[in-house]
Amino acid sequence: MAYSREALIEAVSAQMPDKRWKHTLGVMETSIQLAKQYGADPERAETAAILHDVAKYWPVERMKEIIEQNQLNLDLLVYDKQMWHSEVGAFVAEKDYGITDPDIINAIRFHTSGREDMSLLEKIVCLADYIEPGRDFPGVDKIREKAQVSLEEGLVAGFDSTISLLLEKRRVIFPLTVLARNDLVRILEDKI
Amino acid sequence: MAYSREALIEAVSAQMPDKRWKHTLGVMETSIQLAKQYGADPERAETAAILHDVAKYWPVERMKEIIEQNQLNLDLLVYDKQMWHSEVGAFVAEKDYGITDPDIINAIRFHTSGREDMSLLEKIVCLADYIEPGRDFPGVDKIREKAQVSLEEGLVAGFDSTISLLLEKRRVIFPLTVLARNDLVRILEDKI
Repeated sequence: MAYSREALIEAVSAQMPDKRWKHTLGVMETSIQLAKQYGADPERAETAAILHDVAKYWPVERMKEIIEQNQLNLDLLVYDKQMWHSEVGAFVAEKDYGITDPDIINAIRFHTSGREDMSLLEKIVCLADYIEPGRDFPGVDKIREKAQVSLEEGLVAGFDSTISLLLEKRRVIFPLTVLARNDLVRILEDKI
Repeated sequence: MAYSREALIEAVSAQMPDKRWKHTLGVMETSIQLAKQYGADPERAETAAILHDVAKYWPVERMKEIIEQNQLNLDLLVYDKQMWHSEVGAFVAEKDYGITDPDIINAIRFHTSGREDMSLLEKIVCLADYIEPGRDFPGVDKIREKAQVSLEEGLVAGFDSTISLLLEKRRVIFPLTVLARNDLVRILEDKI
């Protein structure tokens, strides 16, 4: 039941408003570009990018049900709903869209939070989600600059901006994002 | 083998340079004040304050040995050495200074990192460590102001300043501090 690229694009784009699909097109473009720049497979990067927000506009109750009924990461449910769509998206990619490549599935699963020991593909999709051309938030240009130095530098800048924003807004910080950032900070320290 | 207050002060002050002992005197004063203000036992708060930095100036190797040989929290060893003295101090308080009150021991153990579900005493000593009169760092006055609103407001401001500094300096963030802050943010949200 594997979808062709075109069928996948048609099916996924129907799951979200035009504006969000435009964002997805940006993430596809940037993922391909980063994959070429940093030696990953552009096709797999694009497939993960197409699917990364597939569940973003699904009703919260539906996401919750999928997480509960399939015993996905139940810890997510005590965190912001923004964190749920990645886990649900990874599940849906496999179940409904026939994705079997675990690296693509994990690139969808961890595109919002990051995690420790991120794969090359996971880093690319997560970073592309921060810097695709349509993104416009304070500090995005710094993340774009850092993304030219290395994936790790780009991601640390991205996670830093997320954590700073959550501090500022007094919102809960997803612990996995802190672990992801710590891991990258250590990788960069070792490189010096 | 319980020490009198005076004997405890004499023994602990001998473990650190004068400057750090001056800091401890500040933490004692502020802990007593916060205990009175927020309904904790000032004597227990003072005892925890006297001991909180007992191991701060011990050689790193000695701290490491104590953590390893006594199977304390080994996870600490992959984090900054600054995090070790609290764990070692809690151990030493019990073993060398005859402290048996688990709340005092935990107030020492978690005075640097915080943790989820902090007790009243733990909150007091942790916050006093941020705001004692000798502290002078950017943002300390904001933490002092918040400490007048509630212990939780004060601690969130304190943890926020710690996390911001670590982001800025690109240093690893101790995950328990994030969990402690998340927990307090949720407590404050529920109060609204």
